[in-house]
Amino acid sequence: MEIRFSGFGGQGIIKAGILLGKAASLFDGKHATMNQSFGPEARGGACSAQVVILNTPILYPYITEPDIVVTMSQEAYEKFANDIPKGKTLLTDSDLVKPEKVPKSVNMYSVPATRIAENMGNRIFANVVMVGFLTAITEVVSKDAVKKALPGSVPDRFVEGNIEAFERGYKYGIDLINNKKTTPKAKVKKKDKE
Amino acid sequence: MEIRFSGFGGQGIIKAGILLGKAASLFDGKHATMNQSFGPEARGGACSAQVVILNTPILYPYITEPDIVVTMSQEAYEKFANDIPKGKTLLTDSDLVKPEKVPKSVNMYSVPATRIAENMGNRIFANVVMVGFLTAITEVVSKDAVKKALPGSVPDRFVEGNIEAFERGYKYGIDLINNKKTTPKAKVKKKDKE
Repeated sequence: MEIRFSGFGGQGIIKAGILLGKAASLFDGKHATMNQSFGPEARGGACSAQVVILNTPILYPYITEPDIVVTMSQEAYEKFANDIPKGKTLLTDSDLVKPEKVPKSVNMYSVPATRIAENMGNRIFANVVMVGFLTAITEVVSKDAVKKALPGSVPDRFVEGNIEAFERGYKYGIDLINNKKTTPKAKVKKKDKE
Repeated sequence: MEIRFSGFGGQGIIKAGILLGKAASLFDGKHATMNQSFGPEARGGACSAQVVILNTPILYPYITEPDIVVTMSQEAYEKFANDIPKGKTLLTDSDLVKPEKVPKSVNMYSVPATRIAENMGNRIFANVVMVGFLTAITEVVSKDAVKKALPGSVPDRFVEGNIEAFERGYKYGIDLINNKKTTPKAKVKKKDKE
């Protein structure tokens, strides 16, 4: 599974990547890497983490064909949403990203992650709301694994808030799937890339 | 240049890697990646960032032969110090790492990074003290580049403190080199790996 988490600096994009990697490796028994390539995109505050999660050791930690692309800013959307292969999944922050033309072949799911975090009193939780949403929609990591990985990944005083943020994002995702009635196309098949 | 930055969770190891990568790519005009592999070492709080800095695009972001290994904990030292090739550089936090047997062929330089940070009032600066020390000893990034990369890499309210932390680590490194009188063997030759 190749996952790109993108947004702007200060949103905790890299932290979200680390959280996914820890959850997958420590608590789901998989192999994971998180990679950040610095380049012109590092100017202007854009930020992207490449996470690879496999059942086998990872030889090449770059993303070749993303299975899941998360965009938490318009700039990130414009940069990364075009490269999503057919049938793969795009997740966006619905308040921060206004998609212009989403290819029909891409499964897009949106969550007001930043607004949910602000309603909790602190927008620093937006990244973990998004991780909860991603977990519900894609099942790339297990819910339990993320909850176990949170303590130790965030400062102690924020553990409780982050777990709540994760649960809120997760619930938003589950509700979205249930309301769609149809089988969610975005549920990434486990056989892909593993 | 292949640099491993290692220590325990909470020391800002990944942040130090990101800072180096940003400095090199945005302000020194090089290519850089920062990679974190999750594995059993992610248990128990050990933490390691692999940074690769080259003049050319980076095809393989893992470390094959480190040029510089930074260890900010005894556990990290025991795990990574044995793999340092002849003639390469080992940097340690002198209070947190007690080297048992350092091969003569390795150039070891130590700085009380955490103590310097505590003297500033906050040990969160220890990672950037170490980056300052690394910059002075190895010149893998330029002093100016790191200082330009700091704003935007740390929360606004900590920029000033981090710049001071960087300067203190840098000065400690320069003083150490000057006091050694001899040409510092640890000054990594620019022709290596580039």
